[in-house]
Amino acid sequence: MASSMTTKDGKPFERASLESLMRRRLFYTPAFDIYGGVSGLYDYGPPGCALVNNVVDTWRKHFVLKENMLEVDCTMLTPYEVLKTSGHVDKFADWMCKDPKTGEIFRADHLVEEVLEARLKGDKEARGQKAEPEVEDPKKKKKKVKNITAVKLDDSVVQEYEETLAKIDNYDGAELGLLIKKYDIKNPATGTELEPPVAFNLMFQTSIGPSSNLPGYLRPETAQGQFLNFAKLLEFNQQSMPFASASIGKSFRNEISPRAGLLRVREFLMAEIEHFVDPEGGKKHPRFDEVKDIELELLDREVQLAGKTSVKTTKIGEAVQTGLVDNETLGYFLARIQLFLLRIGVDPKKIRFRQHMANEMAHYATDCWDAELLTSYGWIECVGCADRSAYDLTVHMKKTGTPLVVREPRKEPLKVEEYQCDIAKKAFGPKYKKDGKAVEAAIEALSQELREKLSLELEKEGKITIDVPGVGDGKVEVPKDLLTIEKRTRVENVREYTPNVIEPSFGIGRIMYALCEHSYWTRENDEARGILSFPPTVAPTKVLIVPLSGNQDFKPFIREVSDKLAEIGISSRVDDSGASIGKRYARNDELGTPLGITIDFQSVKDSSFTLRDRDTTKQVRANLDEICKAIANLVDGREKWADVASRLPAFEGQEVD
Amino acid sequence: MASSMTTKDGKPFERASLESLMRRRLFYTPAFDIYGGVSGLYDYGPPGCALVNNVVDTWRKHFVLKENMLEVDCTMLTPYEVLKTSGHVDKFADWMCKDPKTGEIFRADHLVEEVLEARLKGDKEARGQKAEPEVEDPKKKKKKVKNITAVKLDDSVVQEYEETLAKIDNYDGAELGLLIKKYDIKNPATGTELEPPVAFNLMFQTSIGPSSNLPGYLRPETAQGQFLNFAKLLEFNQQSMPFASASIGKSFRNEISPRAGLLRVREFLMAEIEHFVDPEGGKKHPRFDEVKDIELELLDREVQLAGKTSVKTTKIGEAVQTGLVDNETLGYFLARIQLFLLRIGVDPKKIRFRQHMANEMAHYATDCWDAELLTSYGWIECVGCADRSAYDLTVHMKKTGTPLVVREPRKEPLKVEEYQCDIAKKAFGPKYKKDGKAVEAAIEALSQELREKLSLELEKEGKITIDVPGVGDGKVEVPKDLLTIEKRTRVENVREYTPNVIEPSFGIGRIMYALCEHSYWTRENDEARGILSFPPTVAPTKVLIVPLSGNQDFKPFIREVSDKLAEIGISSRVDDSGASIGKRYARNDELGTPLGITIDFQSVKDSSFTLRDRDTTKQVRANLDEICKAIANLVDGREKWADVASRLPAFEGQEVD
Repeated sequence: MASSMTTKDGKPFERASLESLMRRRLFYTPAFDIYGGVSGLYDYGPPGCALVNNVVDTWRKHFVLKENMLEVDCTMLTPYEVLKTSGHVDKFADWMCKDPKTGEIFRADHLVEEVLEARLKGDKEARGQKAEPEVEDPKKKKKKVKNITAVKLDDSVVQEYEETLAKIDNYDGAELGLLIKKYDIKNPATGTELEPPVAFNLMFQTSIGPSSNLPGYLRPETAQGQFLNFAKLLEFNQQSMPFASASIGKSFRNEISPRAGLLRVREFLMAEIEHFVDPEGGKKHPRFDEVKDIELELLDREVQLAGKTSVKTTKIGEAVQTGLVDNETLGYFLARIQLFLLRIGVDPKKIRFRQHMANEMAHYATDCWDAELLTSYGWIECVGCADRSAYDLTVHMKKTGTPLVVREPRKEPLKVEEYQCDIAKKAFGPKYKKDGKAVEAAIEALSQELREKLSLELEKEGKITIDVPGVGDGKVEVPKDLLTIEKRTRVENVREYTPNVIEPSFGIGRIMYALCEHSYWTRENDEARGILSFPPTVAPTKVLIVPLSGNQDFKPFIREVSDKLAEIGISSRVDDSGASIGKRYARNDELGTPLGITIDFQSVKDSSFTLRDRDTTKQVRANLDEICKAIANLVDGREKWADVASRLPAFEGQEVD
Repeated sequence: MASSMTTKDGKPFERASLESLMRRRLFYTPAFDIYGGVSGLYDYGPPGCALVNNVVDTWRKHFVLKENMLEVDCTMLTPYEVLKTSGHVDKFADWMCKDPKTGEIFRADHLVEEVLEARLKGDKEARGQKAEPEVEDPKKKKKKVKNITAVKLDDSVVQEYEETLAKIDNYDGAELGLLIKKYDIKNPATGTELEPPVAFNLMFQTSIGPSSNLPGYLRPETAQGQFLNFAKLLEFNQQSMPFASASIGKSFRNEISPRAGLLRVREFLMAEIEHFVDPEGGKKHPRFDEVKDIELELLDREVQLAGKTSVKTTKIGEAVQTGLVDNETLGYFLARIQLFLLRIGVDPKKIRFRQHMANEMAHYATDCWDAELLTSYGWIECVGCADRSAYDLTVHMKKTGTPLVVREPRKEPLKVEEYQCDIAKKAFGPKYKKDGKAVEAAIEALSQELREKLSLELEKEGKITIDVPGVGDGKVEVPKDLLTIEKRTRVENVREYTPNVIEPSFGIGRIMYALCEHSYWTRENDEARGILSFPPTVAPTKVLIVPLSGNQDFKPFIREVSDKLAEIGISSRVDDSGASIGKRYARNDELGTPLGITIDFQSVKDSSFTLRDRDTTKQVRANLDEICKAIANLVDGREKWADVASRLPAFEGQEVD
């Protein structure tokens, strides 16, 4: 799959060229580089930062603005108690093995994978088979395993290794420990036996305040802050359901040994939506009709369990109807996620939606679909869309006693037929004395079934005997004059329920990296000239302003064009360096700048300028107002370059490809 | 000063009413409220979050876009080594005293202040003087000091207390300890003697990675990431100086006992600019001319040292010319800061620029002016504008050995006349043997003055004697045949220098809070009806859409208006609750929504709508295109309401104040 990665013009994709470009042009850079760096921490330079800002801005328009979501900004510092309740203190962990000699630490599942895969590769070599082109998977293989030579394995061993690898996400620490023993897996570099796997919690711990008695963590997700504010958000939304909150912010994950560049990092930007919905009535969505005919590539749980990865192209309306996707709200968001990804420029042929297998889901999820993007590292999870049911609201409500529920008047009062027990209070006390309360509680706790049976008995025998643990011999007799059991109708005017949560959760850094892979190609006539064809909407800088030369006459025009663009909110950069026009444009092709304005001697004469399109290298010529209007249209997505090129006169005066 | 705080319509400002409004309308809320909260941590709800986003967006346009700054996004997690070098590990601390019995912790300077101020107040009461209206200062008084009764003090004691208070920012831990002893200051609540002050570092500490050998902190400022990337940013900027980087992100400060709401918090959003400038040539700024006539209210160091707070209204051009403000670049940013604050709606009468006193500056600063905004808590530092000189780049360069310098070709090669020493290497070794290197180094280290003197001596005596510590008796004789000292001209074609940094640093949360105070007033006819008059550019939601009633005929129009606004990037909210139109508008006045569109029966007939202005409650009526155009103009600041009201027909059909 990944080995067949091609660029949009059909040439093989070269990851090394793209990564070299991205570092050279400062899309990102290892953080603290001059101090030797810290793995899993990256800084975004100007083009990366602008690209992320534009992706986030588009996200906010696409989701928050369009759907009137309630955006919140909650703190990253989170006290222990909250994450203990949410389950993260106990369950947000990976298994690690330590080398007792060197102190080196391995993530246990990755280690087993690496070693078994290396042995299988050695086996193939020994059998004289050509190894398949390597497909790296950032969740998996990480390190070249050294000192493995071509050793032939028994057929039964090969089969066992392959089955183990297929189930690698299933194993807990003890099981991984057994595998490590069974397969005699050691530190691949030194051959030292490792300590058994221990759980390593992935949250960064700290202490809040001057005394050390308030431990806290950096949040592992933005979701908890949204859940804790649920009651206030519902109030803000004037008690109206369904509604969604949203949050954009950094989260943290103390990876055991992060590799794979921007795909596995310790500090990352997330955009998360928590859509609160009534669990009754099939979790309908009011705008589902708008998306129902959108086709998605779905890879469901059953197909994966059968060991396959074939996707089905399915209209989301059908997928919901057949139950493949559980409900309208989940389906609505899957479609909206795809629309968002397409809007920012992701390649439509490199998106699929994969359903999580039961053993793979986070501790809070009851169902989950990932939007995966195809990259040279394989299919990468970039957006998760989980049904967290009522898990989080329920545990926080239970812990704090704060009602995190919706109370709504019923349109039709609910009539409940039930057996009710009435106690003759006045006579009850004198009869049972200190045991009165216990007897009363035992009566209150009787089930409807028992009440029905006892009501007949009471009628017939004039008394009943009930279990009251701790009173006398545990059996207490209640006579008819102290108790009435009757079938009556109770009318309920208010309905109280804990909403379910559908959570689309976006990893912005991963999306950005995949977008860069999808946008990268090279000029037909020159492999060394890379281009990042971002759509104008998300491109880091929209316009490059290039004066033909350093001539003083161009200076006032540079300022005029630059100020005019800033005024209409369009980001531009001036390149008045001495380099040739071609070189200056080439640099900006690498930065993904979609448009260029050249200032030449004609501009000085008649205030006309040329506008150049990055992808076609074609140019048009017009006055500044016309040029700015075209730029604004291109950036807002109202026009394509073809529209502009057909409207405005072409300019072919000089070649600036 | 603060006691005379009035709203923009001249009524006394009531902080309690504003804070109640802000919490009720979910501008902000204590974080983890249902778990009892954590002091100094707040979440922003939908209107607060949107307001902050809009302020940040305006900031980005005003600074980053307008001035082509290089925006970066660096990690918050920062390894120990970096912050040790920057000085934060050693110097970013406050002094705290612990109550050994209760474990309660006090910030030492705040405690001394509180107690002395309470005693002075008691003295005034005892003298029968009316206490001045209290002006709270969030940097200072925090807790009501209990059990202080009206006790008259000696005149000399009063004077001593007052002098101590005036210098409170000067004292270090030992001095604070002496004051606490001298003035017999104890835990005000219990009377227990406190432990002596100890330094408490204000950074949150954590550990990066699975082994505990990489300690780290959450950054206390965004600046360090920008400094560490200096060389790459200079390269990105094609070696061109001056330039600025910028960063918007959260920073952290583990306050000892945070109070004063949003003004002193443990996690906060900063927007920081690092403008790198050549220290030679007076730190000129190319666009200074554009701002030179802007008038600022300046409160300089001298005035403060004289114990006064009178400001001088000064054109920034003059202030730079007279040296009151050190240089053009600093002056340029002070003016641009003011323009930004005005653009987002800060009251022009409530801004001043205060110069730091020498003892008050951060450890890295050589000069600093704060933009302070007047609030009910007093004058609050909201933007710092510091000259960090070459401090940070120098320490990081020294520590890492990475050159953080600018190398630029000199226009005119620099000719340096100097005495150069040439050693006869071949003969040198045999003569001095193992001491050769030491003697050579001693010669290399000779100053120009000494070289001049020695060259004459060498000529005259045929030998010289120089100091070489550790060789023989520390004196070594060098004969003429081993050494030549000559005056020659060296030509330097490249100039190398470490840039200075001017740093405007914005506390977005404080600015937002001050803006809310400045924007708050109440309807003339109803004290209970609060209004937040944010400019449309930064208002959380731009438009409220209100159908006259729940009539089904209005539904398609609600969707049409709402979608149309989303399409042009304008945030709106629908209120189709059953409440009266007046009530719905009143709610949105509190949210600061500047505009309202009413959908009525006329709308159903002719697709016309009314547009209402929050501040005047006046309305106009027009078709949707006209209405949307007016809204876009108001939001972008191209039109004021008065312009719209004069263009479009007034509507007076119904009263919706």
